[in-house]
Amino acid sequence: MRSTLSWQAGRAGAALRRTSLLRRELRADDIAVRVDYCGVCHTDLHAVRTHTGDAPLVPGHEFTGVVTGLGREVTRFALGDQVAVGNIVDSCGECAMCQAGQENFCHEFPTLTYGGTDRHDGTSTLGAFSREYVVRDEFAYPLPAGLDPAAAAPLMCAGITVWEPLRALGVGPGARVAVAGLGGLGHLAVKLAVALGAETTVVSRSAGKAGDTRRLGGHDLIVSADQRQMAAARDRFDVVIDTIAVPHDVAPYLKLVALDGTLSLVGHLGAVTVQATDLLIGRKKLSSAGSGGRPATAAMLEFCARHGITADIELLPSARVNEALDRLARNDVRYRFVLDLSDLPQNR
Amino acid sequence: MRSTLSWQAGRAGAALRRTSLLRRELRADDIAVRVDYCGVCHTDLHAVRTHTGDAPLVPGHEFTGVVTGLGREVTRFALGDQVAVGNIVDSCGECAMCQAGQENFCHEFPTLTYGGTDRHDGTSTLGAFSREYVVRDEFAYPLPAGLDPAAAAPLMCAGITVWEPLRALGVGPGARVAVAGLGGLGHLAVKLAVALGAETTVVSRSAGKAGDTRRLGGHDLIVSADQRQMAAARDRFDVVIDTIAVPHDVAPYLKLVALDGTLSLVGHLGAVTVQATDLLIGRKKLSSAGSGGRPATAAMLEFCARHGITADIELLPSARVNEALDRLARNDVRYRFVLDLSDLPQNR
Repeated sequence: MRSTLSWQAGRAGAALRRTSLLRRELRADDIAVRVDYCGVCHTDLHAVRTHTGDAPLVPGHEFTGVVTGLGREVTRFALGDQVAVGNIVDSCGECAMCQAGQENFCHEFPTLTYGGTDRHDGTSTLGAFSREYVVRDEFAYPLPAGLDPAAAAPLMCAGITVWEPLRALGVGPGARVAVAGLGGLGHLAVKLAVALGAETTVVSRSAGKAGDTRRLGGHDLIVSADQRQMAAARDRFDVVIDTIAVPHDVAPYLKLVALDGTLSLVGHLGAVTVQATDLLIGRKKLSSAGSGGRPATAAMLEFCARHGITADIELLPSARVNEALDRLARNDVRYRFVLDLSDLPQNR
Repeated sequence: MRSTLSWQAGRAGAALRRTSLLRRELRADDIAVRVDYCGVCHTDLHAVRTHTGDAPLVPGHEFTGVVTGLGREVTRFALGDQVAVGNIVDSCGECAMCQAGQENFCHEFPTLTYGGTDRHDGTSTLGAFSREYVVRDEFAYPLPAGLDPAAAAPLMCAGITVWEPLRALGVGPGARVAVAGLGGLGHLAVKLAVALGAETTVVSRSAGKAGDTRRLGGHDLIVSADQRQMAAARDRFDVVIDTIAVPHDVAPYLKLVALDGTLSLVGHLGAVTVQATDLLIGRKKLSSAGSGGRPATAAMLEFCARHGITADIELLPSARVNEALDRLARNDVRYRFVLDLSDLPQNR
């Protein structure tokens, strides 16, 4: 086994602590990655805050780093390559979804980067708030040249999560897109929609987001607390990407959707209740998205490299991970924390 | 005012009684219709069973008949024309939805055939369980030659309600369609999907529907109570039309939807709760439909005439309306009751 350092959760609410962990020895199709940068996702916060403490928990599922070890059959990578990894690290490869390149929908459930179960040895996966990660080569992606590796890390969860619905819903030049909520997911949704050629509007509680909306390339801001503005935007958008991370009533956002348009929930993934008539009137659709398959992830990275898109980040030494989680819980981040893992040794 | 006979609801649960009612004198763009046949919809049952008795209630919103009076500006119809009318009888005509030919989604809400409010005189509308109806000419449709007027009546609510999602979701040759629930809506959904060229499967609680499935042109039957059959059909259908008329968990039916496919709720239109992850996994969409705009309604009638599609009905004299409602409540009908109004005089 390979020993490395990590930030590990204790019981629910307790601070993460610097702890060593063991990674598996490389299988034939594994690579070892020195984790340089890992984004901090709402999922991490949720996992830490609800952790029972019964099993080890190391969060982190959007990271970039450098290949430092190669399994004997690996040909896709060489030592020293820069790579990016997202929230899934394996899948069955056999089912219809895997065959369709949607490994994130694997019928046997994809192996999650942390909190999942390795399909070969049955161990629980531990995430990338650690200096080394061992991953099957097919689930690591070459990081395109020109993308800053720290700011690119959040593309691997936040980015692909909003890219998938934008592409699946056919967003391109002339499409009218609204992005509800301007956080980690939302700000990337705006950048990607704008680069895809969509007329892009931010819907936010705060009129104070007007400057950021413009800076991100967005064309308009609707203040959700302003009933007049919301009413004026009725039926206006082909696609609404709802990135709001807390439980909320989706009805006001469904009203913004145009005839035959779609609202895609990507922020809060619990139970959602709608009135069927709110879908019926205007023949609207409710959808959801999260993560992406291998082809879409590769395409997203290529698109981002071509358009110079990365996340707006606040980079912190990994030792400040607890501060990052606390501030994320208060929405005090523009727009994504990324941990710099260089303050941990890779092996010990 | 014009006096006619009708079947009118008393307090919730009381039997409908033969009662006279007054129709308005014809406006310039009105026609008077002698109602010959009116279908019995689940909406009627719901309205009667929940009626407070405070205001008159005459159900009935899918009917055919003959033009017996013309407003002075009416040019679309002549006396003696056979016509069909559905569940909306007016709309604002000005809003974006009306302009798009989706009068059923009128921003000022369309005027319902009964239980609505007339946009000109503010009176409550009374439905077509009566021998005469007065309707704005734009909301009556010529009944195509060759369609049996009794069996065509249910096309005007049940038919258009399932036609709209089939068309909006692009169902055509090669599409894989499942119809959940084989009642008034369901059996028409099967006929229409088959005629559109779709590979069409019925999902029913009862294995006893195999014969009817074949007779309606359907290609397969899945028994929803059979977990093995449901599991085998996972991700199989581009479109699932859920016509089940009572509250139910949609999760098992969402599982049948293919990647990027849609489940359209048309049977029960209350609150619906889904797990976002049941939409996320497979990038599935939840939608709903009911009624249709004028262009779609005309197109549906033309399509039905071309393909010889009408409802499978049980025709009863209107005096047996209470028996029809009771049996509908027990799902004891294959597949739609239609009332023959000829046992009522048109005027008295």
